[in-house]
Amino acid sequence: MRATQFLIATQKETPADAVVVSHKLMLRAGLIRKMASGLYNWLPLGLRVLRKVEAVVRDEMDKAGALELLMPVVQPAELWQESGRWEQYGGELLRIKDRHDNDFCLGPTHEEVITDLVRNEIKSYKALPANFYQIQTKFRDETRPRFGVMRAREFLMKDAYSFHIGQDSLQATYDTMHQAYSNVFSRLGLDFRAVAADTGSIGGSGSHEFHVLADSGEDDIAFSSKSDFVANVELAEAIAPANTRAPAQEVFTEVATPGAHSVEDVAKLLNAELSQVLKTLIVKAAEDENGEQGLVALVVRGDHELNEIKAEKLPQVASPLTMASDAEINAAVGASAGSLGPKGLSFPVIVDRAAAVASDFVCGANKDGYHLTGVNWERDIPLPVVTDIRNVVAGDPSPDGQGVIEIKRGIEVGHIFQLGDKYSQAMKATVLDENGKQKVVSMGCYGIGVSRVVAAAIEQNHDDNGIIWPAALTPFDVALVPINMHKSAAVAEQCEALYQALQQAGLDVLFMDEAKARLGVMLADIELMGLPHQIIVGDRGLEAGNVEYKNRASGEKQDVAVADVVAFVKGQLSQ
Amino acid sequence: MRATQFLIATQKETPADAVVVSHKLMLRAGLIRKMASGLYNWLPLGLRVLRKVEAVVRDEMDKAGALELLMPVVQPAELWQESGRWEQYGGELLRIKDRHDNDFCLGPTHEEVITDLVRNEIKSYKALPANFYQIQTKFRDETRPRFGVMRAREFLMKDAYSFHIGQDSLQATYDTMHQAYSNVFSRLGLDFRAVAADTGSIGGSGSHEFHVLADSGEDDIAFSSKSDFVANVELAEAIAPANTRAPAQEVFTEVATPGAHSVEDVAKLLNAELSQVLKTLIVKAAEDENGEQGLVALVVRGDHELNEIKAEKLPQVASPLTMASDAEINAAVGASAGSLGPKGLSFPVIVDRAAAVASDFVCGANKDGYHLTGVNWERDIPLPVVTDIRNVVAGDPSPDGQGVIEIKRGIEVGHIFQLGDKYSQAMKATVLDENGKQKVVSMGCYGIGVSRVVAAAIEQNHDDNGIIWPAALTPFDVALVPINMHKSAAVAEQCEALYQALQQAGLDVLFMDEAKARLGVMLADIELMGLPHQIIVGDRGLEAGNVEYKNRASGEKQDVAVADVVAFVKGQLSQ
Repeated sequence: MRATQFLIATQKETPADAVVVSHKLMLRAGLIRKMASGLYNWLPLGLRVLRKVEAVVRDEMDKAGALELLMPVVQPAELWQESGRWEQYGGELLRIKDRHDNDFCLGPTHEEVITDLVRNEIKSYKALPANFYQIQTKFRDETRPRFGVMRAREFLMKDAYSFHIGQDSLQATYDTMHQAYSNVFSRLGLDFRAVAADTGSIGGSGSHEFHVLADSGEDDIAFSSKSDFVANVELAEAIAPANTRAPAQEVFTEVATPGAHSVEDVAKLLNAELSQVLKTLIVKAAEDENGEQGLVALVVRGDHELNEIKAEKLPQVASPLTMASDAEINAAVGASAGSLGPKGLSFPVIVDRAAAVASDFVCGANKDGYHLTGVNWERDIPLPVVTDIRNVVAGDPSPDGQGVIEIKRGIEVGHIFQLGDKYSQAMKATVLDENGKQKVVSMGCYGIGVSRVVAAAIEQNHDDNGIIWPAALTPFDVALVPINMHKSAAVAEQCEALYQALQQAGLDVLFMDEAKARLGVMLADIELMGLPHQIIVGDRGLEAGNVEYKNRASGEKQDVAVADVVAFVKGQLSQ
Repeated sequence: MRATQFLIATQKETPADAVVVSHKLMLRAGLIRKMASGLYNWLPLGLRVLRKVEAVVRDEMDKAGALELLMPVVQPAELWQESGRWEQYGGELLRIKDRHDNDFCLGPTHEEVITDLVRNEIKSYKALPANFYQIQTKFRDETRPRFGVMRAREFLMKDAYSFHIGQDSLQATYDTMHQAYSNVFSRLGLDFRAVAADTGSIGGSGSHEFHVLADSGEDDIAFSSKSDFVANVELAEAIAPANTRAPAQEVFTEVATPGAHSVEDVAKLLNAELSQVLKTLIVKAAEDENGEQGLVALVVRGDHELNEIKAEKLPQVASPLTMASDAEINAAVGASAGSLGPKGLSFPVIVDRAAAVASDFVCGANKDGYHLTGVNWERDIPLPVVTDIRNVVAGDPSPDGQGVIEIKRGIEVGHIFQLGDKYSQAMKATVLDENGKQKVVSMGCYGIGVSRVVAAAIEQNHDDNGIIWPAALTPFDVALVPINMHKSAAVAEQCEALYQALQQAGLDVLFMDEAKARLGVMLADIELMGLPHQIIVGDRGLEAGNVEYKNRASGEKQDVAVADVVAFVKGQLSQ
């Protein structure tokens, strides 16, 4: 491609609303342009990258035996009412009305549509397992779209749905797709991890997220320092500490802590370690047999965070997890949040494993402006139910017993999920089994955020000068850069010859053919756009029969004989 | 692809709501499934065809120098308000609100978005001409979606937009795109015509529609029997008849015609040819200098049809064309529609060229229940303004003077259009010209109905047994069909070997590998799905070292030696 026939839309300035580096670089390099909040145009340069992601995803899906189809963006409300999601789904589901006042939505996902299709088309167990995928525009009406295409409203997604009789079949396809996902992200040259994930309210029995590791990631991922263990922080178990509780040494004392409401305030005021201050959170209890709903206190160390997913799975606790209001707390405890503690409460207390081995600790006195110090379980407060209700932190023992937890940040680019019969049951998707009986199928679903992959790749591969594309994602393999082409016929001729030769060798070349363009500007653009290989052609080099090669990632430069350029670049590409 | 790993979704019954043959066959062959009114799932078989259309379109657009990008489906109202189309566009524009109550629409077309993008990105004449295209989902909220994907609400479209300084540049790109469109439809194997088209209310100065010829087409296309002349019927000029008016022979008479309101009724009652009865239509006149709007009578022969596009372009006539109401007619004429004629009217009359050479004709008497016979221009009524205001009909002289008009039906699959500055003026899309002055750019737009092409191809290529795909569109090149594979190891082995060999030769093979499937059912499915080449493998043939080859289009069968099959099929494909 000649630059004069292409749209190079690089920018020096970073728009003010771009926070993360991928968003900044995608705007500056001219990959995307914002049309409206959460809505982006993919410029020719960006679309080339997006199509490369699509091609790898499509190839691996085909190899995994999934069949490509295409379902509509606009979906009728009836199907979502059948699954129950028309009511359940929040404001991210953009509900619309057509000219006849019928209800539709813009699909954020296609479980209902595919389930409807399969229940109509597949009637026998003989046609199962079946696995269908599409690469299609999705819409999610984010309250606060941000980070460019990372959290846009309209985006491109690969979604697949598999159908089965029995768990074994689902597990087999799930494993195949797990491998296919690993292949996709490996081929794209990304450093990623498949992370055990929570199945959340969607139900089902198995789920993995695929994360590209990057400091700007929105998710925390827990690794073992010694083993293969990896899990979403929210899902990793914080196992019971090896140490037992130290014997009580201090005197139980009530102290005034005026104005100290947070655990940090209290620790500072009392000159205590944050880990010595226990914090108490009060949540709604699960309904009892009479449908009444009391309260439950959850106690974790001051340096730990409550894990809401773990908490709401407890039988004593209401799901979804609901914090008690100030009024409810005051009515039940006689004190406000900021002075709460586990002592003397009239409702159940659940204490985290780490907090349960604390001794001589600090906690709220359940009396506004007062805390207790030198508190000890059993001596001062009966030891309540002990279980894991916190997020793991770096340094925790790994749940598999090997090494300690390390935490890195990740960007979720894929998610695979065993749905079980959540949709097929609600929508009556059945087939005749071997015995001629109607049987509800089980399902898996498998997503890849195609547009998000582009952003994640940049988060992981960039420097101060711009993007550094992995080979599989680069919009052009090579940049061909003339020096003062308008002054030198030799440079112009040699560039034309190399342009043809590199293309004939099957390379995607961006020829910076604007004769009067300044070298520094061109090179800065190419670095920004992240093209991995640069060939710079000038009179001085040509006199010695050479051009200059520069590698974007390493920054290394070297002279290459004109006659060897094509072979040299092909060699670089195959590395 | 093995049939057991594919989704063959053929159906014997045609759903009741399918009227046209492409809709019937797309459902029956399992290319598409209806999800809701005007919303279709593309099944794996159909998507393979759709992707082939896409690939050819993309290749020709790239060759024409257009740059691919991708614009959002969901578009902000602000841009449509700028162009004025937010108000002008009818109910086909699906207007929606997001969760923050902001207005958006689902894009039926992307002029506003691309104009917004270009005015922001292109600042200098040096970057022009530029031509951008996308292949993207569109939405048009049809009142009555019908004919399957031919007039669906959600559909796939290739749309391109070019930007220019000056008409010469626009014309040059327009010509390039005209050629690219011809290449696309030629490569797809379709019998098509590029037809001069009306530029309608959108303005601009040049437009061609690309029509696939098929009896079920919604548009009438006028051809010359002798020359290359071709135009939309609405646009073809009905030139002045060669014959002059015959001398008057009959006596001017007023006759009672009770109950005869239509020209057919009148002709029958008076025993006259339809061409001898003139019909008079009364429409609103263009506003005069004082802003007042009178009436105009339009007179055409009884066997001709008023051409509304021609009529509303007349300076005397209001645009858009507006029929006068019954009350207005009665007030101005003193008679009702059904008894109107050109004699004695108090407002201007315009007569069609063919009607102007009629003599001894019949027309309404402007008196309810009466007509005039033996009427002659000049003798009985002053000859009014004469011009072309009717549709051409078969047998009319061709406007280019060569041969006569023939009329065929066509399906519009592409449209190219010189927009001029309609959008760029309204949205202030300017660049600096060579003299450093801001200049409004001019634009062209170019559409191909990608999903519609699939339907049009079927309309043109089918028989009683099903679809007959042109080579460029077929979902699979070859069907490999075993006879009684579950009973014959030789058949099974030979099929496996041929399946591998055909694939290695680069062919897309559908291997009907369901061991117990009945031959007749498989062959019927393959005919229905339209695969162009069939290889049938049975014990009897194998004993002689042969398989049977059948050509879908011709129906011809022949034996081919096993050893020659791959070469033979490749030979067939290259024909």
